[in-house]
Amino acid sequence: MNFASDNWAGAHPRISAGLMDHAAGYAPAYGTSSLDKEVAETFSRIFERQVAVFFVATGTAANALSLTALSKPGGLSFCHREAHVVRDECGAAEYLAGGARLCAVDGPLGRIDPAGLDTAIGRFMPESVHAGRPAAVSITQATEAGTVYGLDDIEAISATAARYRLPVHMDGARFANALVSLGATPAEMTWKRGIDMVSFGGTKNGCWCAEAVVLFDPDWAGEFQFLRKRAGQLFSKSRFVAAQFEAYFSDGLWLETARHANAMAARLAGHIRESRAARLAWEPQANMVFAILPQPAVASLRASGAHFHEQHQPRGFPGGPGAGEVLCRLVTSFATSAGDVDRFAQSLDVARQ
Amino acid sequence: MNFASDNWAGAHPRISAGLMDHAAGYAPAYGTSSLDKEVAETFSRIFERQVAVFFVATGTAANALSLTALSKPGGLSFCHREAHVVRDECGAAEYLAGGARLCAVDGPLGRIDPAGLDTAIGRFMPESVHAGRPAAVSITQATEAGTVYGLDDIEAISATAARYRLPVHMDGARFANALVSLGATPAEMTWKRGIDMVSFGGTKNGCWCAEAVVLFDPDWAGEFQFLRKRAGQLFSKSRFVAAQFEAYFSDGLWLETARHANAMAARLAGHIRESRAARLAWEPQANMVFAILPQPAVASLRASGAHFHEQHQPRGFPGGPGAGEVLCRLVTSFATSAGDVDRFAQSLDVARQ
Amino acid sequence: MNFASDNWAGAHPRISAGLMDHAAGYAPAYGTSSLDKEVAETFSRIFERQVAVFFVATGTAANALSLTALSKPGGLSFCHREAHVVRDECGAAEYLAGGARLCAVDGPLGRIDPAGLDTAIGRFMPESVHAGRPAAVSITQATEAGTVYGLDDIEAISATAARYRLPVHMDGARFANALVSLGATPAEMTWKRGIDMVSFGGTKNGCWCAEAVVLFDPDWAGEFQFLRKRAGQLFSKSRFVAAQFEAYFSDGLWLETARHANAMAARLAGHIRESRAARLAWEPQANMVFAILPQPAVASLRASGAHFHEQHQPRGFPGGPGAGEVLCRLVTSFATSAGDVDRFAQSLDVARQ
Amino acid sequence: MNFASDNWAGAHPRISAGLMDHAAGYAPAYGTSSLDKEVAETFSRIFERQVAVFFVATGTAANALSLTALSKPGGLSFCHREAHVVRDECGAAEYLAGGARLCAVDGPLGRIDPAGLDTAIGRFMPESVHAGRPAAVSITQATEAGTVYGLDDIEAISATAARYRLPVHMDGARFANALVSLGATPAEMTWKRGIDMVSFGGTKNGCWCAEAVVLFDPDWAGEFQFLRKRAGQLFSKSRFVAAQFEAYFSDGLWLETARHANAMAARLAGHIRESRAARLAWEPQANMVFAILPQPAVASLRASGAHFHEQHQPRGFPGGPGAGEVLCRLVTSFATSAGDVDRFAQSLDVARQ
Repeated sequence: MNFASDNWAGAHPRISAGLMDHAAGYAPAYGTSSLDKEVAETFSRIFERQVAVFFVATGTAANALSLTALSKPGGLSFCHREAHVVRDECGAAEYLAGGARLCAVDGPLGRIDPAGLDTAIGRFMPESVHAGRPAAVSITQATEAGTVYGLDDIEAISATAARYRLPVHMDGARFANALVSLGATPAEMTWKRGIDMVSFGGTKNGCWCAEAVVLFDPDWAGEFQFLRKRAGQLFSKSRFVAAQFEAYFSDGLWLETARHANAMAARLAGHIRESRAARLAWEPQANMVFAILPQPAVASLRASGAHFHEQHQPRGFPGGPGAGEVLCRLVTSFATSAGDVDRFAQSLDVARQ
Repeated sequence: MNFASDNWAGAHPRISAGLMDHAAGYAPAYGTSSLDKEVAETFSRIFERQVAVFFVATGTAANALSLTALSKPGGLSFCHREAHVVRDECGAAEYLAGGARLCAVDGPLGRIDPAGLDTAIGRFMPESVHAGRPAAVSITQATEAGTVYGLDDIEAISATAARYRLPVHMDGARFANALVSLGATPAEMTWKRGIDMVSFGGTKNGCWCAEAVVLFDPDWAGEFQFLRKRAGQLFSKSRFVAAQFEAYFSDGLWLETARHANAMAARLAGHIRESRAARLAWEPQANMVFAILPQPAVASLRASGAHFHEQHQPRGFPGGPGAGEVLCRLVTSFATSAGDVDRFAQSLDVARQ
Repeated sequence: MNFASDNWAGAHPRISAGLMDHAAGYAPAYGTSSLDKEVAETFSRIFERQVAVFFVATGTAANALSLTALSKPGGLSFCHREAHVVRDECGAAEYLAGGARLCAVDGPLGRIDPAGLDTAIGRFMPESVHAGRPAAVSITQATEAGTVYGLDDIEAISATAARYRLPVHMDGARFANALVSLGATPAEMTWKRGIDMVSFGGTKNGCWCAEAVVLFDPDWAGEFQFLRKRAGQLFSKSRFVAAQFEAYFSDGLWLETARHANAMAARLAGHIRESRAARLAWEPQANMVFAILPQPAVASLRASGAHFHEQHQPRGFPGGPGAGEVLCRLVTSFATSAGDVDRFAQSLDVARQ
Repeated sequence: MNFASDNWAGAHPRISAGLMDHAAGYAPAYGTSSLDKEVAETFSRIFERQVAVFFVATGTAANALSLTALSKPGGLSFCHREAHVVRDECGAAEYLAGGARLCAVDGPLGRIDPAGLDTAIGRFMPESVHAGRPAAVSITQATEAGTVYGLDDIEAISATAARYRLPVHMDGARFANALVSLGATPAEMTWKRGIDMVSFGGTKNGCWCAEAVVLFDPDWAGEFQFLRKRAGQLFSKSRFVAAQFEAYFSDGLWLETARHANAMAARLAGHIRESRAARLAWEPQANMVFAILPQPAVASLRASGAHFHEQHQPRGFPGGPGAGEVLCRLVTSFATSAGDVDRFAQSLDVARQ
């Protein structure tokens, strides 16, 4: 019963098999192998346009280098207050960008509110050197709250950004979970809705280490390769990341694992919705369930071997735990079994008694 | 006949098997799993003292974060002119350290000359703010020239550094190749000779991605974890790096693969020494052979399917190619077969005829 | 009738005379002249303890270098949402510190609320690498809202910081205005209340360019000189900054000019309080008056030759302009005359008619 | 008898008078006053084209921000090994540029050799991410050795840079001394010979603090203002720098002071040339004389009240002090009197006896 995080899961057997397939033999290093090139072409096919793809080591690196690419002196990047880049990346974006600033914007359930974004950006006069100047907008899809921007939501964000001529980055650490939640294509969820750059994550969805920055504007690629190398993010045996992505995209594995994870979250949410021992903090849309549990239930579940994180109620979110209650985050993945989900629900109900 | 680089080789079967063994199941993320901890203990056992170990994505990151840890405002790090950190890392050390400077020191065949180091450091008055101030010394073991510092050489370097109270970093991208070349223990080659910090590379020696920074002073560990995370170098599924190192150290695999690579280099050097078509540029001590070949031989070898790099004669190195000759770098690895080495020699002799 | 800013005023005649006195002759450069040393001693006398003093070019540099000195990897500095370092310094602190983050804290009328500070800091676990870690607190005295922290307020802030072992920086761009407002000594307003470092501004109070960082902990001085030089902030003819400070402190000029500026602000506030054409946004405590004026009055005043800035109502401040009203900032200085203040009030009343 | 440095001199009386003229009254801050604008126009007139001018606090800042403007990720700037930016600026260029690297080039008497520059740049393949990529060339005019690039020399440097599409920066801390030495116009010495950006120094030539970055490409100005502000280099009372430059350019004062300083250096060189107690290390071309003195003469001169610096023989320079001899640097300025020069020569001859 492990709902701690999708990065506590291991590697999907087909990802492992893909790695094995390319373990032997020689291949040019630093991303120049034929496999690297084939996988880059696969990305272009999946996104239905020519894209530039850069593998990096972590989602934090993908986000920080993306915002570095988009930043400029005195630059401000607008993100949701609860975005991973703000909350959980140790200031990597500010550091790698040489001192950029992230401006927190609010919005319901982890999604930036376009009107709030407009107000936040509009406060700055781009020609004034004192306050700094807007440089980029970054959204997280799926969000840290397990919610998903609809296609219209994305379009509203990027239309706002466009009014200020700002590029838009998408942190897609859980890209696939959002995609299957929307039933959209990668193109529809990104560049067709005004996204310029994506942190494309495979690690949480069954790879062991497969993260990429996808650029829709090929003019940025020449510079980006220097940003990546300079940050110590260019793998020598890059083919092993390529091998994971090859398997990931093969026969739709990535959509399958994401659908499974989302289905497991929905199943878990269903149990909680029906439980008298707990309630949903809000409705999940991807592979994370936020539930409010009584403290004794939390203790009892842990005693039964369940793993999950407790967290503070994010500022501005509705409801929240009452006295003696705890906000819990339950994350599912390709590795979550229906049995585990059902056992968790049973333990929850037992805990209540 | 692939001698392009040890990072063109894939993964050793036992490394792959080690990865497979840990692919399934859940484990705490970000380096906190029991496997991560066990491997950290293995490092301590191998180095015969308590060390702090930080996995990072690349050798460049290991070097740059090490020098970041050792740097200070206006800080100067002294390295050999041909060091990888100077020649091949896109300024990562300067960038991640927020503007540190590398000072090139000369010395025969890729090894810093202790007297030259003394002179180079001695030029600075540590209390003067104008010129900058010495902060660290970094040596590469084995060097980029395929040579190896003897234990006394290391001691001479660190004694010089100590006179100026400077810490010493070792870039050990080819740590194992140097170690077996010397027949020394890890402790003897490092902290017993005054080394404070090591970039410990496994990738070139049979792993697919296993690099670590090893700190001998535990006081630095608390800060180093922030340096790593802030640089986007903390893997979420860190256990997969740990799994590689577990296999790497198991039953002495790492020494075995290094001995094999070095033996293949010695075999290749033997062939070249005896060849009339080529000559050794200098004597190899690890897994890289530098040979001077006539241009037609280079072309002919490439036509026969041989892969290797040509390079400029490094400044201050003895001999060097004459007219119509080329300095070639031939790198061996765990994956090099005696057959390939012999075929290369045959092709070389054929080329001459 | 110039109330645009205290940095629109020129140089006080006694400051100019001081500069003249030292214009001729030779003096060692880079802060090593006897005058530099004497002025450093004067700072120590004024602060009633041995301090280290570093002249820099601007208040922005003073703040940014102070926070650089106090920062660390992943470090977070807590400041009021309306602090100059947040609002008006183009991200200099983040840039010079190599990517530090400023965390905005709220509090009434530009002053950090100690309880809010406690909550803001307390959210972070210093040992967790993900969220970043608290590194420093910075307060502005007098604040950007023209208010002043009482001595107890400062003590409450620094007591909170001390609970988390955080150093406290004071942005004293208007140090003298706050000091005479409180009737306190420099020691009482700083280190006796737990302040560790001050950006000590003379420019707004009658100098033409005299800014200094004052360190109460001499252990930081050795490093700070490198921070300053590395940022291009070490004047060669440093004696000319020293000459200004010599005149500034001589016969209490600095207190006299600050008292005058504050008195002019109080006089202006008195007029506005009595005016039926305008009202005070809040009570001034130093040399800045915030008033709410009808738009026609603003236009009319400008037509009469008055200079002042309009600004947005800061978030969380009480009251604020209604429809057809404007929040105006009126700044007084050593150069403001009672005549100008009275003329402004007359113009305001005329405007209303 | 003060030959320590041109920055040990005070301010020229006409500079001081210029400051006084603008001490009273109000003026818009941050470089927006009418005086700031008039002085910017003066720069354009002097350079015979529209230029963008940015006042900064120090020559170090001017150089570092110039190279920051010209840098890019992995960027390398080529300068003479003895350039001030390399030797005396505490790594400011590397720091403010976020980790750029300076590549030392050699050449006789402080001047970059164009062929050596070509070789140094040509070593890099701009498309390879490993080694870093050339970004800019910087020359010092007059050099740190007191020599001056001829107009053809400058053209040769910038032609070399142009072949690699690199911009060229000129560190003109002693711009005026070089200019009058060549008898050239500012335009001839800069953009007509391919210079893109100048650190224009007034401080060493009679101002107390007047340094500017001059950009010949107006497209860079929009970004440069953010670079300056972000580095804490935008003076609030900027008019006081403008006032110095106004006086500096008025009635050719700057050329007059430079001619005087150079003439004093020539007079001093003449004395030394004729002296039997000392010899010129090389021929001076601006306001610095390098002479080789016997140690006893050095001691005796100091005892007579002479101030000057001893220094190491720069690598690759001809001749150099023998046993018992010292290389001395003697700097003249607007403030140097013929009497001082002659007294120095007399003391030197006395010392010998």
